[in-house]
Amino acid sequence: MYLCDFQQRIRYGETDQMGYVYYGRYAEFYEIGRTEMIRKVGMTYRDLESRGIMMPVVKMVCNYFRPIAYDELITIRTVLRKLPTARITFHHEILNEAGELINEGEVHLVFTDATTRKPIRPPKDLMEALAPFFSGTEEN
Amino acid sequence: MYLCDFQQRIRYGETDQMGYVYYGRYAEFYEIGRTEMIRKVGMTYRDLESRGIMMPVVKMVCNYFRPIAYDELITIRTVLRKLPTARITFHHEILNEAGELINEGEVHLVFTDATTRKPIRPPKDLMEALAPFFSGTEEN
Amino acid sequence: MYLCDFQQRIRYGETDQMGYVYYGRYAEFYEIGRTEMIRKVGMTYRDLESRGIMMPVVKMVCNYFRPIAYDELITIRTVLRKLPTARITFHHEILNEAGELINEGEVHLVFTDATTRKPIRPPKDLMEALAPFFSGTEEN
Amino acid sequence: MYLCDFQQRIRYGETDQMGYVYYGRYAEFYEIGRTEMIRKVGMTYRDLESRGIMMPVVKMVCNYFRPIAYDELITIRTVLRKLPTARITFHHEILNEAGELINEGEVHLVFTDATTRKPIRPPKDLMEALAPFFSGTEEN
Repeated sequence: MYLCDFQQRIRYGETDQMGYVYYGRYAEFYEIGRTEMIRKVGMTYRDLESRGIMMPVVKMVCNYFRPIAYDELITIRTVLRKLPTARITFHHEILNEAGELINEGEVHLVFTDATTRKPIRPPKDLMEALAPFFSGTEEN
Repeated sequence: MYLCDFQQRIRYGETDQMGYVYYGRYAEFYEIGRTEMIRKVGMTYRDLESRGIMMPVVKMVCNYFRPIAYDELITIRTVLRKLPTARITFHHEILNEAGELINEGEVHLVFTDATTRKPIRPPKDLMEALAPFFSGTEEN
Repeated sequence: MYLCDFQQRIRYGETDQMGYVYYGRYAEFYEIGRTEMIRKVGMTYRDLESRGIMMPVVKMVCNYFRPIAYDELITIRTVLRKLPTARITFHHEILNEAGELINEGEVHLVFTDATTRKPIRPPKDLMEALAPFFSGTEEN
Repeated sequence: MYLCDFQQRIRYGETDQMGYVYYGRYAEFYEIGRTEMIRKVGMTYRDLESRGIMMPVVKMVCNYFRPIAYDELITIRTVLRKLPTARITFHHEILNEAGELINEGEVHLVFTDATTRKPIRPPKDLMEALAPFFSGTEEN
């Protein structure tokens, strides 16, 4: 298992007239979470793309437990439970300042060759960077 | 079962650097879908809110099958499979101009009293407007 | 002068906690306006891009006169006052259902070669399509 | 003069298919800038709102000089050149990692009573917090 926490303040533009963050904006929080997790292992998603690897999202699940308001400092917790295959799944928890769970999400992406648009194995250096955090019997 | 189709063009601002619609923007398409479905039965979500009924989203599931590009005219198909209880579930299909399924989603919302923030039964007039489309033994 | 009106409903996700459309979302309305204006002369911005012409925005001015609420049907009025040179300027007026002016904007874009990233003259077919609407002595 | 710098990474969802940040997203960067500036003087915009003060935007001007890409760490520089009256004007500069100016904006807001929706004088405590940074002959 590999875990990464990242903190972010809620923007005014992320709220809607109900007075809390719009339900569609959580996808950006998840995106921040996985971007920062990849950075934490010493790589960047930006660099992966420049090497011809695209990672389109194929599935997202969001569960909304509590609302979150403008200017709150949220923690975006991103967890990789298993080593990726052609598919990588990030689990996310969004916590408010009191540490309460406000949202839970999972995002599934597929390593894709930018030219052929075909699924590919995850890049070797990413696998090697992640390997130390996983031991034993993973499967996707 | 109750079904509503609504067409919408993809905005440039909805794309990302992969060249297709950003995965987080589909939530807005679903929102358009349910807004137009409620309008089609002769009510508006806006009016429900002004009567003190809020409908926060508690769960969303998105499946992404194909990418969709700027300026394409999509069809947002919204289906209500069952009469709502305190919870209402909308199923969505996004189709491209060729009629191909590009995305499938479901959004679960809860009828909520804007003052007490407690779940409530769906408004009578909405239930009466929907009833003719459902027959027999639905439950959520 | 060339004018194009296009109608659009305000999405819930476009509002913020003040209860009206977020000030940053008007840029998307302007974008819809110019997209539809180009379509009205028989071309598409999408096609221009596929021919290697990019049109980055170099300046935007927005004046906000009245708020606009969720579900209102706005009219996006787009006006081209002068034939473009390497720069094209769109003027926009956003009207509410009562026909009141709620917002006024202008967006300046530059015709750019997608490969060299240098400014270029506007495409001939676009100029020819626009010419009938302009007479006499325009310059940018 | 009062100045505040704040750093922020570009999100994937902020880019468009041209490969850079969408021109409409800069409004959110300006919003982050003024939020953080107010925090820096020991107050929060969130608190102002809870005291019944709303600050709708009445004008925005954006000048785009260079594109900015995904994952770049931008500096949002916010400058208050004059003490506010009923109107407050923030000037913004967005700098890339190399310190180059990529965008310049100004946003004009009006202190407004949330109940009467009438313009009001800026709150005393905000004026007192800002005063030390201004000397002599300001006018709006």
